[in-house]
Amino acid sequence: MTIQLPFDFATLPIPSGFRWGTAQAAIKTQGRPDVGILTSDVPCAAAATFTQNAFAAAPVHYSKANLAQTKAQMQCVVVNSGCANAATGEQGFSNAVLMADLTAKTIGCHTEQVFVCSTGTIGVQLPMDKMTIGINAASKDLGHDVSHFEAFARAIMTTDTVPKAAGLAVTMHDGREIKLLGCCKGSGMIHPMMATMLGYVVTDAAIDPQFLQEMFSRCVERSFNCVTVDGDTSTNDTAIILASGASQCHINHGTADALIFEQALLDVMQSLGKQMARDGEGATKLIEIQVQKARSFEEARVIGHQIANSPLVKTAIYGHDANWGRIACAVGNAPIDVDSSLVNIKLGNIELLASGQPVPFDEALALEVLKQDTVIINVTLGLGTKEATVWTCDFTEKYIEINGCYRT
Amino acid sequence: MTIQLPFDFATLPIPSGFRWGTAQAAIKTQGRPDVGILTSDVPCAAAATFTQNAFAAAPVHYSKANLAQTKAQMQCVVVNSGCANAATGEQGFSNAVLMADLTAKTIGCHTEQVFVCSTGTIGVQLPMDKMTIGINAASKDLGHDVSHFEAFARAIMTTDTVPKAAGLAVTMHDGREIKLLGCCKGSGMIHPMMATMLGYVVTDAAIDPQFLQEMFSRCVERSFNCVTVDGDTSTNDTAIILASGASQCHINHGTADALIFEQALLDVMQSLGKQMARDGEGATKLIEIQVQKARSFEEARVIGHQIANSPLVKTAIYGHDANWGRIACAVGNAPIDVDSSLVNIKLGNIELLASGQPVPFDEALALEVLKQDTVIINVTLGLGTKEATVWTCDFTEKYIEINGCYRT
Repeated sequence: MTIQLPFDFATLPIPSGFRWGTAQAAIKTQGRPDVGILTSDVPCAAAATFTQNAFAAAPVHYSKANLAQTKAQMQCVVVNSGCANAATGEQGFSNAVLMADLTAKTIGCHTEQVFVCSTGTIGVQLPMDKMTIGINAASKDLGHDVSHFEAFARAIMTTDTVPKAAGLAVTMHDGREIKLLGCCKGSGMIHPMMATMLGYVVTDAAIDPQFLQEMFSRCVERSFNCVTVDGDTSTNDTAIILASGASQCHINHGTADALIFEQALLDVMQSLGKQMARDGEGATKLIEIQVQKARSFEEARVIGHQIANSPLVKTAIYGHDANWGRIACAVGNAPIDVDSSLVNIKLGNIELLASGQPVPFDEALALEVLKQDTVIINVTLGLGTKEATVWTCDFTEKYIEINGCYRT
Repeated sequence: MTIQLPFDFATLPIPSGFRWGTAQAAIKTQGRPDVGILTSDVPCAAAATFTQNAFAAAPVHYSKANLAQTKAQMQCVVVNSGCANAATGEQGFSNAVLMADLTAKTIGCHTEQVFVCSTGTIGVQLPMDKMTIGINAASKDLGHDVSHFEAFARAIMTTDTVPKAAGLAVTMHDGREIKLLGCCKGSGMIHPMMATMLGYVVTDAAIDPQFLQEMFSRCVERSFNCVTVDGDTSTNDTAIILASGASQCHINHGTADALIFEQALLDVMQSLGKQMARDGEGATKLIEIQVQKARSFEEARVIGHQIANSPLVKTAIYGHDANWGRIACAVGNAPIDVDSSLVNIKLGNIELLASGQPVPFDEALALEVLKQDTVIINVTLGLGTKEATVWTCDFTEKYIEINGCYRT
């Protein structure tokens, strides 16, 4: 079920029972939607993963607590862009609670059934007067159609240049259909273990929340957590899934349907992850790094991230320079026991290093590979049978420009 | 004994018993010196530290073996820029041996008394015909004066814009004087645990090689290993010290003289380290990151490196944007257990975060601090009494330009 890109919003499947609303609250910038609400008509089975940054933002702490308190029965998400509400102390936490409270009142659910998310500048307090107006306006805007979903996907953007979305309708064993639909934001400060990424998936499947969390965590590991733009894990990363059960189609542990569902979920989330990497700040291309024949998925991913976070690799690819020695150097830097004499490196289909020995190659062919929109680097370690794929982007002058004056 | 910068080559102390020679061999580029020899008149007590990269270059493996075989009694260093001789397989190793062999013959020492170093493009074989001519020419050029030392400091440069050198003459307890003189290169792929850095220190002190290695390793930890430009540890990093004993002044373990010597060595190496950071590829300024009140030096340094390697922090400082939330984010990303409510952050003398709470600050004052040639970030963790200082540079469009077309 590979999801083709670019996608068209009009073709996305909309799971029943969900609505989206947005508003312009001028949190940081005038004239763009920056507050969004995603809500289900009924409480949902919910699962989520959050940043591991020690400066985790107030809304992260608060959302975690709500998920625990409701035993993963959540109904909606309120989110703003423009201000991260991170490193904001006690006032920041009170403001997150107030966001939930305002949202719950307009939706008609309990305060603790609300996930709160913020993204934007760190270390600045939220303007709660503007936020109050924004939440009220967003709740009046709620609608079920794809235009409302698209507006939500846009409201969560910061330095993103395009909205990111993916969806699938999959047929279960008995012929019934369930739908999955997700969107996310993320462009810089992206190194999700859990990234300044936010990701939301909704489905009309009926799933026990504990089993949903298991599947969601596994899919996060192989999608969002395999994406990096600049190696900085943000203070606000949050990925959430809500399963409304509106399809009446139950996904139970150990069934063929569960396998179909989890694969569809992974496909949706990997598509979102790749869209994030491709839209990395200043990026001109997507880089896919396949690390194979590793001892474990985790070791393969660590090496993939080491390559993906090397400014030298990323600038070389931007410059269309087949300077593969930098890939070898990055592999050698990973905190993993690697035998250089077993390592092979390919750029696209071009062999560059075989068993630790350099292979003469055609520079003109390499240039063709590097000019593509997507560049694939393949590294085999010769240590085992496991593999991981990591997605990133090239590193350009534009990244410096974007981040040299983000606040101002 | 703080060493003032910028320095003047003419004022550097030249320890007796050492000579330097250089040549233009056109290894990669025409018309610049790219082969250098540093030799002592007699075998020296030697100590060295090397890259920990799993793709460590052929000359690194070979130099390590020589140091062991001679029981740290080494006489000279042969070095080239333009080609790293890394990821070059068996032929690369043979070429490193040949470099030593050619040098030993011209100097009149044993092959295994030669350290071999290479820096430049990874994955390309050395042009040994050019190298042979270069080594012969460099050996004919050997001289003891400062102009030969300066030429050597220039011959090892790659993307460096200025040569880097530091020296001290220090008076021992009994009134005798010993001299220390060092030079290094390093501009990109700098994250020395051990970097594409090479560093050489010579002294006329007489020191047992084992004690020399102890002192040198401690000084590397607090100088070169506290410098980062882009977080990539190169395949070729090598730092070497040669102690000729020509001063007849013995430095023995546990003496007051040993403390004076080690402090002078640290001062020289920290000055070299700061010069590397300031001349980082594309840099406009030096960033000094002081991490204090940590549980250990190692933890403080890990957090210092996490801040120093954050592209978001480095671009903000380039853009004169006091976006301190990115510093907090980097602290929170370090793989160290940190309590955010105990953390203070200062930019120069301006308090930005106190006990995890944001402090209102004067943007105009912050702009003044950020416009300086050197920017100091101070972070206190409130966890202990240990500290570390890490040096890096800002991150600019020029870095991308330099690295987007390094080979071509």
